[in-house]
Amino acid sequence: MQELREAIARYGQGIGQNIVKVDMFLNHRIETGLLFRMGEELARRFQDAKPDLILTVEASGIALALATARAMNDLPVVFAKKGATVVQSPDVAEAKVYSFTHKRENVIRVDKKFLPQGSRVLIIDDFLADGQACQGMMALCAQTDCPIVGIGIGIEKGFMQGGKNLRAMGINLTSLAVVTGIENGKILLADD
Amino acid sequence: MQELREAIARYGQGIGQNIVKVDMFLNHRIETGLLFRMGEELARRFQDAKPDLILTVEASGIALALATARAMNDLPVVFAKKGATVVQSPDVAEAKVYSFTHKRENVIRVDKKFLPQGSRVLIIDDFLADGQACQGMMALCAQTDCPIVGIGIGIEKGFMQGGKNLRAMGINLTSLAVVTGIENGKILLADD
Repeated sequence: MQELREAIARYGQGIGQNIVKVDMFLNHRIETGLLFRMGEELARRFQDAKPDLILTVEASGIALALATARAMNDLPVVFAKKGATVVQSPDVAEAKVYSFTHKRENVIRVDKKFLPQGSRVLIIDDFLADGQACQGMMALCAQTDCPIVGIGIGIEKGFMQGGKNLRAMGINLTSLAVVTGIENGKILLADD
Repeated sequence: MQELREAIARYGQGIGQNIVKVDMFLNHRIETGLLFRMGEELARRFQDAKPDLILTVEASGIALALATARAMNDLPVVFAKKGATVVQSPDVAEAKVYSFTHKRENVIRVDKKFLPQGSRVLIIDDFLADGQACQGMMALCAQTDCPIVGIGIGIEKGFMQGGKNLRAMGINLTSLAVVTGIENGKILLADD
């Protein structure tokens, strides 16, 4: 997606070998117009997948999931939670996810009643790196017998294994921008 | 807001004396159409406040903040983060917040460059209980010399002190629904 690639080139910072910092417009400060155009583009790419709901994981996935849902006739959004709350339902699906950014293992959880059996699930996340978050959400869907009709990503780190692994599984995965590497702080991007 | 009051009456669960569970449509599963109408109503109430940006705190505040921002000509949304990340900027504003839901103290943080000095800030959050999260966000704004032009809330627990304290400070605070109490699992609501 050309506009996203331009925003990454203009505002993104590459740090070290593999950190892509886009907190200026995507995951700390949100450039609202761009975000909704990203959601519209994902909606366009998945219009034939006919999802019943969108699944993401808190916190930074929520914005893009919601923008996509808005562009798909206000599909419901379910966001998996990290860590238990006081009022948690006992009937939850759980999966372990190692967070690359935070360097720790999280458990993500979703109340099973929000993934009704047989629901066609579109997974949306802002980033795809080693694919742990997506694999965790897929594990949640497996526990509730929900087919995954696709995975839509804002920015994919194409130099990591997550995307390759998911595509090798036959998942219908699309990313709005693919980072191919970082050189001297510059973020290198694949062509659209 | 009538539609929100109806959703609370239909889908909300009151637990004990003070837990208002609305995860069916607001903070675990999001009913997207309703959420955007909530944002439109908050935008209408704050149209004269002329904010430059919307500030919220992850995770569940993000959705309503974004819906409000969308209805205010795509204002930028900044969400304060809980807990440090690997790539955090050193120049952050910080505040301590006790989470009533999770029964623990969090530090919330925002990169100062996303709250430029003098920016007119509209604070949005899904819930207002004892007001800790709002007070924390106000402390962040104080550190960057940003005036707060208003606070918009989805659901206020009117039987707790948060709203009273903020109004006593002269803050322009509005809530789309006010819970006055919980009786035998039933959520009692103030009239609009």
